[in-house]
Amino acid sequence: MPALQLNDIYLARQRIESQVRRTAMEYSPSLSQQMGVAVYLKLESQQITGSFKLRGASNAVAQLDARQKARGVVAASTGNHGRALAYAASRQGVKATICLSHLVPENKVQAIRELGAEVCIVGHSQDDAQREAERIANELGATLLPPFDHPAIIAGQGTLGLEILEQLPDVAQVLVPLSGGGLFAGVALAIKSASPQIVTHGISMQRGAAMHASLAAGHPLEVEELSTLADSLGGGIGLDNHYTFNMTLDLCDHLHLLSEASIANALRHAYRQERLVLEGAAVVGIAALLDGLIEPRGPIVVVVSGRNVDIDQHLRVLNGLDA
Amino acid sequence: MPALQLNDIYLARQRIESQVRRTAMEYSPSLSQQMGVAVYLKLESQQITGSFKLRGASNAVAQLDARQKARGVVAASTGNHGRALAYAASRQGVKATICLSHLVPENKVQAIRELGAEVCIVGHSQDDAQREAERIANELGATLLPPFDHPAIIAGQGTLGLEILEQLPDVAQVLVPLSGGGLFAGVALAIKSASPQIVTHGISMQRGAAMHASLAAGHPLEVEELSTLADSLGGGIGLDNHYTFNMTLDLCDHLHLLSEASIANALRHAYRQERLVLEGAAVVGIAALLDGLIEPRGPIVVVVSGRNVDIDQHLRVLNGLDA
Repeated sequence: MPALQLNDIYLARQRIESQVRRTAMEYSPSLSQQMGVAVYLKLESQQITGSFKLRGASNAVAQLDARQKARGVVAASTGNHGRALAYAASRQGVKATICLSHLVPENKVQAIRELGAEVCIVGHSQDDAQREAERIANELGATLLPPFDHPAIIAGQGTLGLEILEQLPDVAQVLVPLSGGGLFAGVALAIKSASPQIVTHGISMQRGAAMHASLAAGHPLEVEELSTLADSLGGGIGLDNHYTFNMTLDLCDHLHLLSEASIANALRHAYRQERLVLEGAAVVGIAALLDGLIEPRGPIVVVVSGRNVDIDQHLRVLNGLDA
Repeated sequence: MPALQLNDIYLARQRIESQVRRTAMEYSPSLSQQMGVAVYLKLESQQITGSFKLRGASNAVAQLDARQKARGVVAASTGNHGRALAYAASRQGVKATICLSHLVPENKVQAIRELGAEVCIVGHSQDDAQREAERIANELGATLLPPFDHPAIIAGQGTLGLEILEQLPDVAQVLVPLSGGGLFAGVALAIKSASPQIVTHGISMQRGAAMHASLAAGHPLEVEELSTLADSLGGGIGLDNHYTFNMTLDLCDHLHLLSEASIANALRHAYRQERLVLEGAAVVGIAALLDGLIEPRGPIVVVVSGRNVDIDQHLRVLNGLDA
């Protein structure tokens, strides 16, 4: 299949710009002091539906033809993709069915139902949910919209990369949460198209980092899914991965893996220093800075990907009860 | 002196639009469900410097002539005005001196110093700080920029009202935190200019509501300043008030006073349901809704004014230790 180009991201932006928010780029005094160079947070946690996922979902729904829209869309999701797709579909009068595993926090399930989507809960892994979504797509003739490994999804997430370039054109390093790779691939394609010298970092948690293991093996691998504070980063990359594996291989300069303690520490930092309530997946860039994993060359942009945290878990972490 | 007009707010916007953020208007599922009508949060807590105060401060500094800029600006502030003025002044190469009382939380003092302003801490009330600012202005020939009772400040805050009208033109009711009245007067002037039928609510805390007591008496009064979770709403309105007293008298349909328990409850609601870290002054509109003080006629816009909370106090409230 043809490789994604920068122009696909510009086309995506034209389709979605009335449906998504241009999010703020916020200077972080505390992280800048820590690093000795300017650090900025790209606050995608303030996106509509609470995460960057709305960009890709809106673009994918906008690209459907009338017949596809009539039959609806279906997706598997750890939560944020499902929530974003439910919202994007409802805005265009399209029926959405969202398949989730039992690992997904209840607050995310409820949020998807409130957006008018049908929810089915199956199995104990993202892969189980994915298989059920494929079955439903075949049965209904609905369009399966995977959470990351799809050109329209990647191009939509890439619009976040365009905003980084426009808001901070002298950026030296970009830190991006890395799971299935849709966000990473889209943002890195935009960034590396602007300049190959801008350094890209893909950041995951130690507990179940499928892309990291796959890149190390040289091909997509299944890994055991484990519970983690960064639950949005859980799930495999698909053994028949078509796009994000190769794009991450090409576009990622550095990979980092984080402990649960580092993620918890970053959640507390975001609350205390930035007055931000974030989900674990969203703070991996902050955690990498606090752990000293990133060379102090700025300006540094940290992509803060979402806020849809289980709030009781978040308060336990604020109180230091995460260990 | 001439009354402020809507056009002053448009002029303010032209001056400051490159310096302030157009903040998001966010639909609140939880408050909409509570009220049975659509409720939106105008998230001025996401403004640069963490509060709406940047609007007025940027406009006031932009209106100075070259000679005034060379002599600097001075202000008394419970924190957010000082922080905003320090930022606005530094962006235009103007020296700022900020006078604070000992009641102002340490995190706010530190934030102002980091923006390059000179800080002087005097007395135990906003009025003490105000008198010191006047003394310094006379001594240095600097321009005194009061936190609220000044046409340029009111017009700057009014730009928030224009954004409300543009983002939600069918708004039926607007809830605004009310202290000295700069925010309230500016927003209400914009709103009432668009339609006298849009209902305005000014909301204060029970502990030290100077504008409420003054309106009840028919003239500006001094009231005792008390510690409150809504510390940004503390302070008098000035016995020689020139603008905000009369504007609030003219433009405010309903006044409400809130208990500390209601404010604490609203802080927890904002965290749990909206994933927002806010200061006490910012949640008074949410508190009024949760307390059943507002007639269920929508759409309702709640102005959420700032995020610069003392974080240890905030965490105590999250843990229910505020009583």
